Amino acid sequence: MNLHALVRAALDEDLGPGDRTTEACIPAEAVGRGHVRAKQSLIVAGHGPAAEAFRAAGERMGGACTYAPLVEEGTRVERGTAVARVEGSLRTLLTGERLALNFLMRLCGIATHTAAHVEAAGGLVQVVDTRKTTPLHRALEKHAVRCGGAMNHRYALFDGVMVKDNHITAVGSLADAVARARAVNHHLIRIEVEVETLAELDEALGTAADVVLLDNMSDEDLAEAVRVTRARKPSVILEASGNMDIERIGRIRGLGLDLISVGGLIHQARWADLSLKLDK
Amino acid sequence: MNLHALVRAALDEDLGPGDRTTEACIPAEAVGRGHVRAKQSLIVAGHGPAAEAFRAAGERMGGACTYAPLVEEGTRVERGTAVARVEGSLRTLLTGERLALNFLMRLCGIATHTAAHVEAAGGLVQVVDTRKTTPLHRALEKHAVRCGGAMNHRYALFDGVMVKDNHITAVGSLADAVARARAVNHHLIRIEVEVETLAELDEALGTAADVVLLDNMSDEDLAEAVRVTRARKPSVILEASGNMDIERIGRIRGLGLDLISVGGLIHQARWADLSLKLDK
Amino acid sequence: MNLHALVRAALDEDLGPGDRTTEACIPAEAVGRGHVRAKQSLIVAGHGPAAEAFRAAGERMGGACTYAPLVEEGTRVERGTAVARVEGSLRTLLTGERLALNFLMRLCGIATHTAAHVEAAGGLVQVVDTRKTTPLHRALEKHAVRCGGAMNHRYALFDGVMVKDNHITAVGSLADAVARARAVNHHLIRIEVEVETLAELDEALGTAADVVLLDNMSDEDLAEAVRVTRARKPSVILEASGNMDIERIGRIRGLGLDLISVGGLIHQARWADLSLKLDK
Amino acid sequence: MNLHALVRAALDEDLGPGDRTTEACIPAEAVGRGHVRAKQSLIVAGHGPAAEAFRAAGERMGGACTYAPLVEEGTRVERGTAVARVEGSLRTLLTGERLALNFLMRLCGIATHTAAHVEAAGGLVQVVDTRKTTPLHRALEKHAVRCGGAMNHRYALFDGVMVKDNHITAVGSLADAVARARAVNHHLIRIEVEVETLAELDEALGTAADVVLLDNMSDEDLAEAVRVTRARKPSVILEASGNMDIERIGRIRGLGLDLISVGGLIHQARWADLSLKLDK
Amino acid sequence: MNLHALVRAALDEDLGPGDRTTEACIPAEAVGRGHVRAKQSLIVAGHGPAAEAFRAAGERMGGACTYAPLVEEGTRVERGTAVARVEGSLRTLLTGERLALNFLMRLCGIATHTAAHVEAAGGLVQVVDTRKTTPLHRALEKHAVRCGGAMNHRYALFDGVMVKDNHITAVGSLADAVARARAVNHHLIRIEVEVETLAELDEALGTAADVVLLDNMSDEDLAEAVRVTRARKPSVILEASGNMDIERIGRIRGLGLDLISVGGLIHQARWADLSLKLDK
Amino acid sequence: MNLHALVRAALDEDLGPGDRTTEACIPAEAVGRGHVRAKQSLIVAGHGPAAEAFRAAGERMGGACTYAPLVEEGTRVERGTAVARVEGSLRTLLTGERLALNFLMRLCGIATHTAAHVEAAGGLVQVVDTRKTTPLHRALEKHAVRCGGAMNHRYALFDGVMVKDNHITAVGSLADAVARARAVNHHLIRIEVEVETLAELDEALGTAADVVLLDNMSDEDLAEAVRVTRARKPSVILEASGNMDIERIGRIRGLGLDLISVGGLIHQARWADLSLKLDK
Repeated sequence: MNLHALVRAALDEDLGPGDRTTEACIPAEAVGRGHVRAKQSLIVAGHGPAAEAFRAAGERMGGACTYAPLVEEGTRVERGTAVARVEGSLRTLLTGERLALNFLMRLCGIATHTAAHVEAAGGLVQVVDTRKTTPLHRALEKHAVRCGGAMNHRYALFDGVMVKDNHITAVGSLADAVARARAVNHHLIRIEVEVETLAELDEALGTAADVVLLDNMSDEDLAEAVRVTRARKPSVILEASGNMDIERIGRIRGLGLDLISVGGLIHQARWADLSLKLDK
Repeated sequence: MNLHALVRAALDEDLGPGDRTTEACIPAEAVGRGHVRAKQSLIVAGHGPAAEAFRAAGERMGGACTYAPLVEEGTRVERGTAVARVEGSLRTLLTGERLALNFLMRLCGIATHTAAHVEAAGGLVQVVDTRKTTPLHRALEKHAVRCGGAMNHRYALFDGVMVKDNHITAVGSLADAVARARAVNHHLIRIEVEVETLAELDEALGTAADVVLLDNMSDEDLAEAVRVTRARKPSVILEASGNMDIERIGRIRGLGLDLISVGGLIHQARWADLSLKLDK
Repeated sequence: MNLHALVRAALDEDLGPGDRTTEACIPAEAVGRGHVRAKQSLIVAGHGPAAEAFRAAGERMGGACTYAPLVEEGTRVERGTAVARVEGSLRTLLTGERLALNFLMRLCGIATHTAAHVEAAGGLVQVVDTRKTTPLHRALEKHAVRCGGAMNHRYALFDGVMVKDNHITAVGSLADAVARARAVNHHLIRIEVEVETLAELDEALGTAADVVLLDNMSDEDLAEAVRVTRARKPSVILEASGNMDIERIGRIRGLGLDLISVGGLIHQARWADLSLKLDK
Repeated sequence: MNLHALVRAALDEDLGPGDRTTEACIPAEAVGRGHVRAKQSLIVAGHGPAAEAFRAAGERMGGACTYAPLVEEGTRVERGTAVARVEGSLRTLLTGERLALNFLMRLCGIATHTAAHVEAAGGLVQVVDTRKTTPLHRALEKHAVRCGGAMNHRYALFDGVMVKDNHITAVGSLADAVARARAVNHHLIRIEVEVETLAELDEALGTAADVVLLDNMSDEDLAEAVRVTRARKPSVILEASGNMDIERIGRIRGLGLDLISVGGLIHQARWADLSLKLDK
Repeated sequence: MNLHALVRAALDEDLGPGDRTTEACIPAEAVGRGHVRAKQSLIVAGHGPAAEAFRAAGERMGGACTYAPLVEEGTRVERGTAVARVEGSLRTLLTGERLALNFLMRLCGIATHTAAHVEAAGGLVQVVDTRKTTPLHRALEKHAVRCGGAMNHRYALFDGVMVKDNHITAVGSLADAVARARAVNHHLIRIEVEVETLAELDEALGTAADVVLLDNMSDEDLAEAVRVTRARKPSVILEASGNMDIERIGRIRGLGLDLISVGGLIHQARWADLSLKLDK
Repeated sequence: MNLHALVRAALDEDLGPGDRTTEACIPAEAVGRGHVRAKQSLIVAGHGPAAEAFRAAGERMGGACTYAPLVEEGTRVERGTAVARVEGSLRTLLTGERLALNFLMRLCGIATHTAAHVEAAGGLVQVVDTRKTTPLHRALEKHAVRCGGAMNHRYALFDGVMVKDNHITAVGSLADAVARARAVNHHLIRIEVEVETLAELDEALGTAADVVLLDNMSDEDLAEAVRVTRARKPSVILEASGNMDIERIGRIRGLGLDLISVGGLIHQARWADLSLKLDK
């Protein structure tokens, strides 16, 4: 479901057969202008779906209302800053307002939360996201993560191979699972395998896996995992995950890991506060 | 977009042309069983979309995997509790796992966060949600709010009238806006109007509005608003909103308000932690 | 399904893989003009879907044809009046003609039939429609009802509560059914309950119901129901229904009822006669 | 849009995010039974969409309710006859009731209205319908026409060629228009051309047209048209149309025409009266 | 599924959540120009879907790229000829390139392969296609057949009647099958019946069939079938099929058949070679 | 568009409002059985969509017809072999027949054509496909390629990076293009770059590219490219493409290349011949 379809389905959810308040109060030909303002310090993300929300509302209400960004995505703004101007059909503006803000507030929240993690990493290790995303919002949420300065992990089940604990349980052997994954996936896909102990890491380094995910290890085991891997198979990429937060990232950023993946960039983020007021 | 369509579109987002890992590692005919467990104290919500996620995955992967709830929606469980059992095709189980958990973790998070607000209200005032919901997830999120013990406000723009600040600005008069709304909406719809001052409340009580939303008022003004309204027009329903959190709800719960609406039930909730492990 | 989607699906129904006659006879680049004329006295309704039909045809046939209304919706015109002009690609005009007229003829028929009922009511009671509408045409038909001067009842199952005979049979008690409905529906929704006797009315007035539907009562019972209700609970809104036609509306319009609902505004209306001829 | 999709879209129109009354009043597990009865003499049509409406409602409400026809399509029944039994989930039954009846009442109305025309034709001439059908309901309405004993004309723009007045105006010549239509349409498609005078009939008989539509002619001209055509080109099929009603069909049925097409079979039909009551 | 929907679904197949190479390498605002060239002698077909592919890519990538045909459909060009120019957003151009070429190469291949058959027929008999087409590509492939100079047979199951061997087996009698088909199909549809022997032809000529398909007959039997039919029932149209290729068409073109249908126009065609290179 | 949706859309293309022949000739309740047989030596592929075609037809025609494979996918069978049995509703069988065969004949053709290339490679080099696939049929065609014994290349634009000639032209530098691609793509995606000369290969080996595509090189240059690469950067994977056919694959299979990609596996394949006959 691309952005065009997502926003139209979302507008249907809120608008259904019509906006009882706006259609009753506002004449079809009325026009006006307003601004979206940050009500807290935040990093901007979400102009795309916000603009699309007003386009979709315009199609349904029969009058255009444009959304003009005033601040670029990925920029930090302080409380009170106008981040966008909306102008045109008042019916469209009032009907599209909530949907646009629902996208913006979520995405600014994720970008702002992500930025704190990236700052903690201090450029010493790459912070990446996971597949723990809100259903149907993955592209938007991964975009917000990039606005916050982090990188994305694989997008979905189809553009990377991750052999995880349940796969290994099902197959019965880490090495077999990796071998099967390598055998049928094309040559542009790398294979990642998850390990939870140093013993499993040892097994993983004996396979064709290109990347190893160190899951739920102690700081000490992470340090040892880096040493072992760099010595034995330096081409392997090392990713750590499990209970990663800002404080711990600061503590382990210098261990020599390549990546730390943090689901909480998205799922522990709260919405940022923004509002839209008509100019009087 | 009903649940059936939502879940299938969401599965497409994650699965696209296929699950590179699972299809490579797991034979089509393999079967297994696992449990979804709470990794923190939480209130259960989301069995519906979780079950649907496995049904959808079964359609795509060609083998059924059933999701059997072990705890009823709305129940608090402690860390370690198994909340559901999944059993059937291993390919389906592993492919549907992330999507099912993404729904469950979000909705348990909302129900748990809501419950804390309801407890603060102590049965003295009704806590309700708002239209600040994740696009396309409104029905699910409003259901989670009910699992947490709160009530829902109107569903969308089509099943209630709320004359808000921007409508009044656009029309130029609170009384005109309410009159227009009453004139063209059917007799089963009540009219709510938003006020920010006691002077506006005074104007609102002179209209046909059935409900008044007291927005962003101080505790003192809320108390005065209740006194004025009960004396002058006792049939009017009073709702308060704006910067409501658990602490403030506890403070104002005894003022005599009918409802407190809290967007943060949903937008300040973080995902709860649950995981799915295959039985070994 | 909004108007855009409805019209495109309807065009697909008629056009399928192509218009065998028009594509064979008319060059792609030919242009022309025609007029839609009333062939009887009627009230105009349906410019919206008619214009959309030509837009949809233009997308499929590759050439625009505009539909310009010459008479406003809700206006009565006499036989021979040109109600719209169509101009542009001849292929589009000829392919879209039937679909546009099928919408227009239906909706003008409903508006014209409705107007006769409103005239009979003489401003003494409000005439409203019901949910007896053509599947997928509800928004259009309810719009035509307003063009004919009547008001709409609730739109659908989701924007009002009506406890009807079958609900009461299923629950076993009118009072219980009303209480359940009030308990879980939000505060902007009023509750209506259907009664068929004065004894049931008596029970209804003891509940939280805001509106009572007097169904299939004699004129005498309707009069008594008004007297009883106004004396006992004047805030209750009274609606009558069942076998209402123009003659009876004229007879009971002075009884003091608030609303008379008439399914026949829509389901007993015949298509009005209009045609589209190319200017020569 | 096939029946499955049509009925689901129609249910969405009425149900949207939920049935406020039924979900509040009726427990999810309650079951019951009811009957659909004719409230007037009518010919039965529409079991298909009625049954599908309950299937669709069952998918949304989570409990099956079966619709069992008690009278075959195309049968005349008298007032009071039970035409179907519904049994199963009460939520599903009550939610699907209106949609099912909206289909049934429309289609029984068309079948009943059609049958009166067929009776008037007395087997001496074939009565057929036209493309004047309710958008998205064509297949159902044409089925109801057959239930009423008449035949269908072409289904749509793609399964027959009809060169009509506007085509001839656009091309500038009846003969050229027919020649173009024949040149590019495949050999299983016959060509029909519309004429309004005996002079045009003369021109039409000189072309490759297989069928001639005699539009808006007087009874005398129709009779003459039959004589001329049978003498000159007996393989040509003759169809008459324009202001055809039951009275006129009775008058001209013996003229020797092959077909009389009547848009009013569908667009002048009113809904028949049927209701669904729960068994007590 | 019309062209607009087909092309967008096809773009989704290739683009999914994004073009990893183009979005990484090319700035959003970069523009450029290129040409599509034939790399072999071929007949041009497919400008329509090629242009639509770039339109669809533009919607997804956020920048327009126009496709301008330089050679008309149905024209033969030699190796090296530029058949179209593409110009605009480089991201759109590079993302849409493969999809546009996949349509063009297929359709030029079919047109070119068809032309060889038409040449072999030498204007003595009509070459037509069949329903052996690529699912969802029928309209495009039948268009390519016309670009190659042949005619189309019926489009699909709904715009013609063909009583084939399996229908006759199921019914048990050729004559019964034809009679049933004639009884319920409208008067603008002709009936075709398939025969494999001269005895079956004899039976077919005794029915109301308008067209006879002579399937898998020897050259001698085809000649005899023509003689018999012309003598006995000259209004019947004769079509031959079964193992028809260029060589055999040349051999039997003078037998007096009306039509030869050749599935291989489409299913034995290979893609023609074309490429798109950016102007440097 | 997954298989379920693809097959239903494809059935709509052929069936539209109905199968005029089958519905006229065959009673709704008639049942029967038939077999699909190979009419040439071929490799079987396509049971999946064939079975789905009969399921889809059953939904539309109202009676199930099962498709039971008799030979496994990927198996070579000789002329006359029954590859599947179909049994059930005769209407469904006859309506679904053509669609099922259109899938099967195409896919068997691709599998059979692919197998000849794989045999030529003799196990010395991997044969893979390309993105030159029929729009909306990519998953099926790539499956047929695997049935024929070859491997797949990347699925689409989203699961691999290929920096091709037009990307390099647009960027202006091979090295810059590769660097940009590496910078923003996640760590499970390998980067491939296309070169046409040994000088370009030299540049490519100085970048982070994991794979090099040797496009349109002579046999001698391919040999030299292998030598240079193995000596300088043995971890690089080498793929050759451009004008690859069975004869040339046989000639260059021993050069030490890792992969040869061949668009012609799919786009030069003709449909294999299979037919479905009812058992008598």
